[in-house]
Parts: sequence; C-alpha cells; structure tokens
Amino acid sequence: MNRTKLISQIKAKESYLCIGLDSDITKIPAHLLNAQDPIFEFNKQIIDATEKYAVSYKINTAFYEALGTKGWESLQKTIDYLPKDIFIIADAKRGDIGNTSSQYAKAFFENLNCDAVTVAPYMGEDSVKPFLEIKDKWTILLALTSNSGAQDFEMLELKNGKKVYEEVLEKSQNWGTDENLMYVVGATKAEYIENIRKIIPNHFLLVPGVGAQGGNLAEVSKAGMTKECGLLINSSRQIIYASKDKDFAEMAAKKAQEIQQEMAIQLSVTK
Amino acid sequence: MNRTKLISQIKAKESYLCIGLDSDITKIPAHLLNAQDPIFEFNKQIIDATEKYAVSYKINTAFYEALGTKGWESLQKTIDYLPKDIFIIADAKRGDIGNTSSQYAKAFFENLNCDAVTVAPYMGEDSVKPFLEIKDKWTILLALTSNSGAQDFEMLELKNGKKVYEEVLEKSQNWGTDENLMYVVGATKAEYIENIRKIIPNHFLLVPGVGAQGGNLAEVSKAGMTKECGLLINSSRQIIYASKDKDFAEMAAKKAQEIQQEMAIQLSVTK
Repeated sequence: MNRTKLISQIKAKESYLCIGLDSDITKIPAHLLNAQDPIFEFNKQIIDATEKYAVSYKINTAFYEALGTKGWESLQKTIDYLPKDIFIIADAKRGDIGNTSSQYAKAFFENLNCDAVTVAPYMGEDSVKPFLEIKDKWTILLALTSNSGAQDFEMLELKNGKKVYEEVLEKSQNWGTDENLMYVVGATKAEYIENIRKIIPNHFLLVPGVGAQGGNLAEVSKAGMTKECGLLINSSRQIIYASKDKDFAEMAAKKAQEIQQEMAIQLSVTK
Repeated sequence: MNRTKLISQIKAKESYLCIGLDSDITKIPAHLLNAQDPIFEFNKQIIDATEKYAVSYKINTAFYEALGTKGWESLQKTIDYLPKDIFIIADAKRGDIGNTSSQYAKAFFENLNCDAVTVAPYMGEDSVKPFLEIKDKWTILLALTSNSGAQDFEMLELKNGKKVYEEVLEKSQNWGTDENLMYVVGATKAEYIENIRKIIPNHFLLVPGVGAQGGNLAEVSKAGMTKECGLLINSSRQIIYASKDKDFAEMAAKKAQEIQQEMAIQLSVTK
C-alpha cells in the first residue's frame, strides 16, 4: 500500500489506529483452545470485530515464532485473512548484513506479502537498504523506543551533540523517502515527538506505547500529527485482551471504537 | 551447552570453527532440488561431511524464513539433526521490549532447543535480559559488526569518549556473565579485537567475516585468543559453497579441514 492510499484510508475511516496482534496462546480465551488453530481463530474474530476502526494491523512475529512451524502457519493464515485495504506491518525488528537482510525482505514482502516490516538500525545503512529496495513496500526503522532500555544506548549523547536516536533519524532519512520509510517512536514522552518532528517533518511515525505502556493519545497526536496525519498509533493488549471471556471480540471492538472516536476528534482539530 | 563443555569440545577437536548454514535455495547444487526438502538435504550432507572439524553450527534464520513455513520446517529438522556435542547458534539478530523478547527466547531456546541466539543491543537492557534468564543458554550480543554500515552508528564517538560499540560492551557485560553472554565482533580489523579484549578479557567472541568478508584467521586469533580460546570463528559461504557440483560436501569438508588445521596451530601457539 502506498502513501496516498494509506492517507486516504485514514481519512475514510477517521482513524490512524494500528491494532497489534501480539496473540499469546497463554492469554487468549480458554474456549478457543479447542479450535484447530486457536491463534488464527482468535485473530480472525478480533479482525472481523475491529477492522472498521483500524487502518493497520501489526503482527508481532515473536508470538508466532514461539510456537514453531505451527505458529508460522498461523502468521501466514492471519496475513492472508486481512482485508486488502489494511496496511499490514510485520513487527519483526530484523536487520543483518546486506545479503541476509535481502532474505528477510523476501520473507516479509514477497513470501508473506506484508506492506511494512520493522527494522533495527544498529548495523547501519547496508543492513537497512535491502528492505528499502523493494518497490511499494515500507521499512519502519526503530528510532526511539518506549521501553526503559531506551536509556541505555538510544538516548546517549554523541560527541557531535546529538543523541544516538537523533543521529539515526538524521542519517537514515537519506536512505529512503517519506514514501517508503517510517520510524518507530515510543509514546511515553510527547515532548520527544515534538523534537523528532523537527528532524523528520513528513515521515510517518509508528507509535507504540499508547495504552499498556503509558502514552497519552491526545498529547502524542498534538505533538506528532502532520497535515496528512503522519501517525499510526498502535494498541495491542488494551484491545485484544479487553476481555478474556466469550465476549472478547465484542469488547475488543468497543475498545477499538473508543480509540477511533478519540482519533476522529484529533484529526478534525488538525484539519 | 555450558562454557566448560564448550571449551572441552574446542580442545578435543582442536578447532574453534563455527560453520554458518546460510543455506540459500538459489545457491545449493542443482541435483538437490529434486529432494523432498532440498535445504535440509543440503544441510545434512554438509553436517555429515564437516562435523569433525567444527565445534559449532550457526543457522542464519533469514534464509529459512524467506521460504515461509517450509523453511521453518527445514530449520527445525536441521537443528534436530545436529549432533549433541555441537554448540548450536540461531543467528537471528532478535531484540524487542521485554515481553516480546521472552517470546523470542522461547522460540529459540525452548521450541528449537538452540544453545545460543544472536541479539541486537539497540533497545537496551530490558530487551536483552529475557534471553539471559534462560538457564544454560547463551546470548550473543552484537557489538562491532563486519559490514560497512558499522561506521554509521556502532563506530560513532559518544560524549563520554567511548565509541557506541565500546559502550555496548561495557554496559552489557554486567547484564550477564562470561558463562551466558558472548559478543559478535567482526574480523575485518584485528586491531579492534585487541581493544575489545581490554574491555572484556574473558567473554567468548563470535567472529564472522573470516573468509568471504575479508578477515584473516591468524591475525584475528592472535588478537582475540584467551587461555581458554575464547573464540568461535565463523565461516559460511567459503565452506558451504566451496563447490556447486555433486562434490559439494567433500569440498566443504576439505575447506573446513584446512581451517581446522590452521586453528590447531593457533591453539598450540597460545598454550
């Protein structure tokens, strides 16, 4: 899905919600465990109930890999099931030397047909470029993450006065364009997002951490929204585990709708 | 496999060779493509021919993921096939927020039963800790990689005077011990390895880049070897693609033996 189509989906649905399918076999409702593929059954019902409120779904690959070959099958079936007008993100945090990154790009863009994959920047340009070379696909580079460990390296100050994550933003924006490159920016502190917008005024940001990790939707939107929205805000556990009973899909829809309604307000404010 | 066992394997085989199974369906000999599982058939024959010269095999997960569910099956079968006295590394470069890293640890340590997994440090302590918490398993953290992109962030100087990769080494060595934590250090410049040994005198280093990426075995060994060896030197393409014909396994063994013989000399020099 290209940028124009993504922006038109955001306008049509009045939503920039990305729902994270961190689907954990130990956390899904017990009545699903008898299904032939419980994780896929869970995802299917979550998607059916919530797709009108979301423009994107983010598959956290770790939860599928933890189940081995069976998990990889559930992952593939989930992606195949997602509607065509949904922006599909593989949250895989990959990145390796060039010839290996090319294989990861093949895995997520060709084999699984995702729209985007999250990539770790540590190994630099030649580890990121193979993802950017695939036409009409997106690389979502980690910049400033929402976890406490962001302090350890991302937030350190370089000799040139910039923080490591700022250097990642400045250097990498030349590797792609705002048509194929987004950034992961944690929502735990909105003031950082204002600063980030000075470096990359037009790129889309994928913002985790609203909800379970403590970010505030209105604040983050105020700090990061552009005229074309420029935000995908992710919520995972808050939506998919809104209930652990038979009403899980209904409750997920209710929560997703609540967030979408707040997003509609934020979009109208920025118009 | 614990540290004592690994060191005794190195002594017994007079080898610190790790063979990288970057097995690419477009590069394996044509006559294998009719097999039911060509990648597994290739790996099996490579392992049979080379295992007496190597103490470790490193599975580059990207090449398997690129083939989807089928690739994940080949990966699992290869790990199951490897002998019990082999140190098995999943070269997966994972790393995410805590609850997600726990799922990756489950994938590679419990589901696939690997001894070690490579992890990217960008997201800091809480992204690495879940791997370190699994008993008798190893985390191999990226420090200084052998690709050109290492210049982009790893080699940058921080305000405190250290390079980013030096800060990764210093900070992370307190997250684990030399019994469960190793580091990836590229072999392209041996002088860096001397410097790294000043920061972490006892930790094992996994060194890629000897061979196809340009490092020199004798130089790297001189700079990095400890009394207990402390090195695993990886070679992938140079061994597994030594020939593209029916004699591929035989030629791979020949190449592996050549490297092992050089390693035996290096081990005897350091005694």
